[in-house]
Amino acid sequence: MIDRLCIIGTGLIGGSLARALRAAGYCREIVGSGRSAQHLQQALQLGVIDRYDTDPAQAVAGADMVLVAVPLGAMEPVFAAIRGHLGTDTVLTDAGSAKASVVAAARTAFGEVPKWFVPGHPIAGTEQSGVGASFADLYRGRCVILTPLPGTDPQASARVRAMWEAAGAQVVEMGVAHHDEVLAATSHLPHILAFTLVESLARLQDKQEIFDYAAGGFRDFTRIASSDPVMWRDICLANADAVQDMIERFVGDLLALDHAVAARDGERLLDIFSRAKAARDAFGDGLQAGESDE
Amino acid sequence: MIDRLCIIGTGLIGGSLARALRAAGYCREIVGSGRSAQHLQQALQLGVIDRYDTDPAQAVAGADMVLVAVPLGAMEPVFAAIRGHLGTDTVLTDAGSAKASVVAAARTAFGEVPKWFVPGHPIAGTEQSGVGASFADLYRGRCVILTPLPGTDPQASARVRAMWEAAGAQVVEMGVAHHDEVLAATSHLPHILAFTLVESLARLQDKQEIFDYAAGGFRDFTRIASSDPVMWRDICLANADAVQDMIERFVGDLLALDHAVAARDGERLLDIFSRAKAARDAFGDGLQAGESDE
Repeated sequence: MIDRLCIIGTGLIGGSLARALRAAGYCREIVGSGRSAQHLQQALQLGVIDRYDTDPAQAVAGADMVLVAVPLGAMEPVFAAIRGHLGTDTVLTDAGSAKASVVAAARTAFGEVPKWFVPGHPIAGTEQSGVGASFADLYRGRCVILTPLPGTDPQASARVRAMWEAAGAQVVEMGVAHHDEVLAATSHLPHILAFTLVESLARLQDKQEIFDYAAGGFRDFTRIASSDPVMWRDICLANADAVQDMIERFVGDLLALDHAVAARDGERLLDIFSRAKAARDAFGDGLQAGESDE
Repeated sequence: MIDRLCIIGTGLIGGSLARALRAAGYCREIVGSGRSAQHLQQALQLGVIDRYDTDPAQAVAGADMVLVAVPLGAMEPVFAAIRGHLGTDTVLTDAGSAKASVVAAARTAFGEVPKWFVPGHPIAGTEQSGVGASFADLYRGRCVILTPLPGTDPQASARVRAMWEAAGAQVVEMGVAHHDEVLAATSHLPHILAFTLVESLARLQDKQEIFDYAAGGFRDFTRIASSDPVMWRDICLANADAVQDMIERFVGDLLALDHAVAARDGERLLDIFSRAKAARDAFGDGLQAGESDE
């Protein structure tokens, strides 16, 4: 149980956790914070939070759990703002889509990475943004990755784990660097491909016609290109090395396919497509469509 | 109205047209043909066709409309097999995803492109294959592109148009080369990206883990990688020039983004992502998910 939860950044991610924990009766009070009083007012009106303070230092007062769910580029200023305002028993966690950069931000803001800071990342989301898109079941059956450091207090990790489990999520732990590599492959690269494809086609001369004749496959394939540009800029900057590795690996594979097309090498093409289909079919289609990893 | 429709290739595309025309009462009799007696037997048992003949030359006898819905690589042998067996009033059309190669196949098989041949392409499908996946509403509200040549008999085009409209589709006409360029952008490139991504990730060391932590966005993004590898090999070979153009254009755009990541150029990244999101949001999400263009 959490007595007072402070959520800095009450958008889709923070708002959905608030709704889930409220539905589970896991929190006595939820305090919101963020830069926009208008957004916080909306969260209040939706019943997602009980009250808010635009000053993070004030908002965290008396909280036993603080979640920072802001774009990666805003992590360090938020950490700096709450430094010295957390209670001795307060646990701090975040929901950033890349972990090394958040750990670095914590190190910079706090002087060292605090033992009561548990880096975390819920693998859930949609291409929507904002508290208006939040819903209590966002994390049900979804995976949350925690990346505690060697110095992280196990009790702090346990409290963060319990919170996400109360929201219906399955919690796993892995190393910071490994998280960033896995997510670069499964989430960051696909989003970059979708953004690039849509932008690439939008610059074609027959733009309107191109989109007129695009069918359902294209629609599914590019849905994630509707995701928040600021968030994705920050992810690319925060996880730049792993993202570059994946882009360059992908370009190599795509050019190999291009060469097979140029050589009219049907055997090679069939080989690539068959292996891809087998892997994708094995991956399955269990969860509902329209979700997006972040 | 069609008296006797012959469908060579009674899979998802041919089977769905048969179901739609039957539901609309637009056909007196539907004759199936194809290489596999087992598949044709299944189509018969499902009530998709009235009878079948594995010999296309026999199957087309007395038909007033013939649809060839086989992979692009099988078009020319099918055309050659039915040459001389079509009635004087028979109209021939196809459902190939690239048109220049089908026109070339017709030219080779018939000596010249017959005036009663109307190249066509229904922009519909799913990542499934086979008559078992066919359904009567596949073409409802979807677009069918016809690419008649200057020498094509307008009455033949009109009869093919009427057939697809009876199945619920909207029919448009465009030039062969233009069709192939538009489809390379909206369908062929996205499928190639999805196949390449899945195959690329499947070769990573942490393959199982990679797929474990992939979420809904990845699922949507890669669904089309479950499409038929033979069909897609044939599309790449049949529309090789336009496909190569699109791949190389895309690689250029992706490497430009890679350079922006390397340079930590947040402004440029935000610019790309914002334009992509605007284009994708304008494109909308009207049709149901799970469909795939072919």
